[in-house]
Amino acid sequence: MANNLLQGKRGIIFGALDEKSIAWKTALKCHEQGAQLVLTNAPVALRMGEINKLAEAVNAPVIPADVTNMDDLKNLFEQAQAHFGGKIDFVLHSIGMSLNVRKGKHYTEINYEWNQKSLDISAMSLHRVLRTAWDMDAISEWGSVVALSYIAAQRVFPDYNEMADAKALLESVARSFGYHYGVRNKVRVNTISQSPTRTTAGSGVKGFDGFIDYAEKMSPLGNASADDCANYCAFMFSDMSRYITMQNLFHDGGFSFVGVSEAVVKTIEEGQQ
Amino acid sequence: MANNLLQGKRGIIFGALDEKSIAWKTALKCHEQGAQLVLTNAPVALRMGEINKLAEAVNAPVIPADVTNMDDLKNLFEQAQAHFGGKIDFVLHSIGMSLNVRKGKHYTEINYEWNQKSLDISAMSLHRVLRTAWDMDAISEWGSVVALSYIAAQRVFPDYNEMADAKALLESVARSFGYHYGVRNKVRVNTISQSPTRTTAGSGVKGFDGFIDYAEKMSPLGNASADDCANYCAFMFSDMSRYITMQNLFHDGGFSFVGVSEAVVKTIEEGQQ
Amino acid sequence: MANNLLQGKRGIIFGALDEKSIAWKTALKCHEQGAQLVLTNAPVALRMGEINKLAEAVNAPVIPADVTNMDDLKNLFEQAQAHFGGKIDFVLHSIGMSLNVRKGKHYTEINYEWNQKSLDISAMSLHRVLRTAWDMDAISEWGSVVALSYIAAQRVFPDYNEMADAKALLESVARSFGYHYGVRNKVRVNTISQSPTRTTAGSGVKGFDGFIDYAEKMSPLGNASADDCANYCAFMFSDMSRYITMQNLFHDGGFSFVGVSEAVVKTIEEGQQ
Amino acid sequence: MANNLLQGKRGIIFGALDEKSIAWKTALKCHEQGAQLVLTNAPVALRMGEINKLAEAVNAPVIPADVTNMDDLKNLFEQAQAHFGGKIDFVLHSIGMSLNVRKGKHYTEINYEWNQKSLDISAMSLHRVLRTAWDMDAISEWGSVVALSYIAAQRVFPDYNEMADAKALLESVARSFGYHYGVRNKVRVNTISQSPTRTTAGSGVKGFDGFIDYAEKMSPLGNASADDCANYCAFMFSDMSRYITMQNLFHDGGFSFVGVSEAVVKTIEEGQQ
Repeated sequence: MANNLLQGKRGIIFGALDEKSIAWKTALKCHEQGAQLVLTNAPVALRMGEINKLAEAVNAPVIPADVTNMDDLKNLFEQAQAHFGGKIDFVLHSIGMSLNVRKGKHYTEINYEWNQKSLDISAMSLHRVLRTAWDMDAISEWGSVVALSYIAAQRVFPDYNEMADAKALLESVARSFGYHYGVRNKVRVNTISQSPTRTTAGSGVKGFDGFIDYAEKMSPLGNASADDCANYCAFMFSDMSRYITMQNLFHDGGFSFVGVSEAVVKTIEEGQQ
Repeated sequence: MANNLLQGKRGIIFGALDEKSIAWKTALKCHEQGAQLVLTNAPVALRMGEINKLAEAVNAPVIPADVTNMDDLKNLFEQAQAHFGGKIDFVLHSIGMSLNVRKGKHYTEINYEWNQKSLDISAMSLHRVLRTAWDMDAISEWGSVVALSYIAAQRVFPDYNEMADAKALLESVARSFGYHYGVRNKVRVNTISQSPTRTTAGSGVKGFDGFIDYAEKMSPLGNASADDCANYCAFMFSDMSRYITMQNLFHDGGFSFVGVSEAVVKTIEEGQQ
Repeated sequence: MANNLLQGKRGIIFGALDEKSIAWKTALKCHEQGAQLVLTNAPVALRMGEINKLAEAVNAPVIPADVTNMDDLKNLFEQAQAHFGGKIDFVLHSIGMSLNVRKGKHYTEINYEWNQKSLDISAMSLHRVLRTAWDMDAISEWGSVVALSYIAAQRVFPDYNEMADAKALLESVARSFGYHYGVRNKVRVNTISQSPTRTTAGSGVKGFDGFIDYAEKMSPLGNASADDCANYCAFMFSDMSRYITMQNLFHDGGFSFVGVSEAVVKTIEEGQQ
Repeated sequence: MANNLLQGKRGIIFGALDEKSIAWKTALKCHEQGAQLVLTNAPVALRMGEINKLAEAVNAPVIPADVTNMDDLKNLFEQAQAHFGGKIDFVLHSIGMSLNVRKGKHYTEINYEWNQKSLDISAMSLHRVLRTAWDMDAISEWGSVVALSYIAAQRVFPDYNEMADAKALLESVARSFGYHYGVRNKVRVNTISQSPTRTTAGSGVKGFDGFIDYAEKMSPLGNASADDCANYCAFMFSDMSRYITMQNLFHDGGFSFVGVSEAVVKTIEEGQQ
């Protein structure tokens, strides 16, 4: 579908790693809906080289930026504005990294230096991005920023580990900065809390397949796909969602409001026989 | 904007009273986005006659239905399907009525018979509508039902009176029925919790202007308009929101996640001098 | 333990059916903590006769009252005050009934007249009780009212059926009336959202054993017992909880904030082999 | 009141600065209820010397510990167990510090190094404390840990600044660690979200008096005092609250569930004249 929802809009997409990424799908969708884009990712992620395929497909420059480095972010917003010839209308923040998860550290045994990095990269980076834009007044009035989150910010999924705390922090930053940016420039900041998704990043989490199956069984509509998430993002970036801000929006086939499903009860009963 | 978001979709709109109604604006927006419509309201509301202007504008038949009457609802869905030559894709439930509010009864002094009517008309009517469609299998796969709610379902706004309880009940019905309809037919059911809006219905509530001013001051973006709410509904009825279900979606300029705004603090400080 | 937490307090306990009832255990606990009590239940429930054992154990009169009948409630509060020689300090509302559940009606097939009764008996009864006390000014300053609820008010448990909607309504009434009673008399109104509990009332729910096992597996501490719930109630009725009001308090071994437990994942994996 | 709720219990109290502190009041209350105590605070805070008055009153040793230093924490738990001759039954975490707030940095201008310290001291310190106890198996079965929080974790109060994000992170840590500690040792972890309180620490927050007045007007019972909060903590440490875990418990006179109060509406109307 091409509905021109984003005709004339200009956005920055953080975090497109490969074609399984939600950020990747969102870039495609935004392009299809008429937006002009700038792509960015950490230098280390860019070295994997896949992003050039996307850059070509959506006709966008790739500007490297380490989200924990304020100079990089400043450079990104400067270059993006130069490229577009004006302000940015939307930003997708799809960034998360946990060394403790990667190294298989249990939540009760995390390395605190790595934890500090996880919080910085996965959550405070949203503050850094917003603050860079704020200082440069780089986002248009009614602009829209979306960060991707997960329901572990509200409820415990043991294998999600310290990323749960990082997502809780991320959602709080979205609310806090969303207040100020809303008051000053009517810029909106929201998080989308997405179903577990088979991305390359997600695969790092131990027990991830169990997660996905359980969520599939608990959700009346099944798990939401990355492609559907891209649709949600496109809507959030459009003028049709102007008064939505400071929200955490579940995009999960109903998972978040199911206490138990008949499918899960059935599987458990079978497991007990 | 016409983005053809609803090209080929067919929907029923409950509750368009006059041009200030959210339902009225939603009907216009859905029509603009390519949908075919059927309009309905209670016979007593229809007698006010305004709806014919809307019917003409969106080229839709008007079929009266008392939402507490199962025969009326059955007739509505039969006629709607006959008119469309097929199933319904979306339904807007914008229905609320409280005799206790109208008659100025304080929450601690409500008449229980009127309360029973308020709950029946404002909340259980969503069950009746969904159940009528469920029994007739009248909603397409991936169809979408939206009911309008208000944040009084979560927090007390004294003048909102028993309607707070009715909205809490409404949101619960949306979740409960949403589960079953999602499992059986992938039909989605959500509520949109809208800013206080100067509609003819809203005006009945005592202290309503105070409400609106306070909400305006508390919301970083100001109160969401009926027109913007119509955009949200159109998105929810489209294929772009397929995996959103059983949610209560705040559409309120950020009100729901503000504890206190600087604007409110300032006004209070001035009030105390 | 006897800590004299309720020394000098006088309370009314609704809903003690038999010794498995939470209300029964709460009556025992309050008595042990030094409170004087009045017991009440619907005439039909009293006819089963068990309550006299409790009445003897806690040295309390039994005053029948149909909670949908304002005259009965007025009589109850008059007689209770006469018995105590003064105002009431606390009330336990442990009342729920669903004909649709009893008769095995699926949520999508409920009888609406029975539903109206379910809402009236299980939820609006809290309004009726509070309003009776409010009109007679029968509750002491800093008095405390607790109603028992269940997490189905927030998330769907398919077998809980229309009682989910009733509990959502109940919790809203607690907030709404709690606001007014707090402002006028510093009376507190809260709900406790208890683990599924093997009471005689609970047993009516289809699939109830499945419920309990699942909740046990999901809760880090296991399901909370009726006895522990009685402790919570005693605290809520004491002067130690004076500033807690309008809350829904989960008493569930952690269930409400677990997304998935390792125990459930393990059972599901076994079920799939 | 002395109800012997904590007879035989042994606890560690973090964060008693002076007699206005909630931790100070909680120490007094726990002592009164029969508990034995160990007091601790950061070396820099201890140097102010007030704590010795408390130590004398509750007959407890003072063991300095920097909560960001694992050796200090290990030493604290070792010494505390040596002092008690056994495991710890409860812990109060009343710790928060923000250099950005102290230095008057606006939320959009925070220094990220200071922010990292704020998160470490105010939130991750709970992980460090729990993990120290976990590694040493230093908390008794059914032990109870409470950390103090504030509603800014859920909704924006602009002057609360980065502490909002710190509290959101703190509450997430309580849930995450609470899951694991519950499963392994039935240890409970909760946060109490307290009314704004005129403590020496709280006074650092800009616009704090405006906060307190607004909260007072919004809360049907008025703001909860530090003394009442101490009662809540004592209950949470007792055996009467065994099945409460992973919760965030609002102790705020009803503030959290009020959308607007008549008192606030009145003040605003006066402010607008």
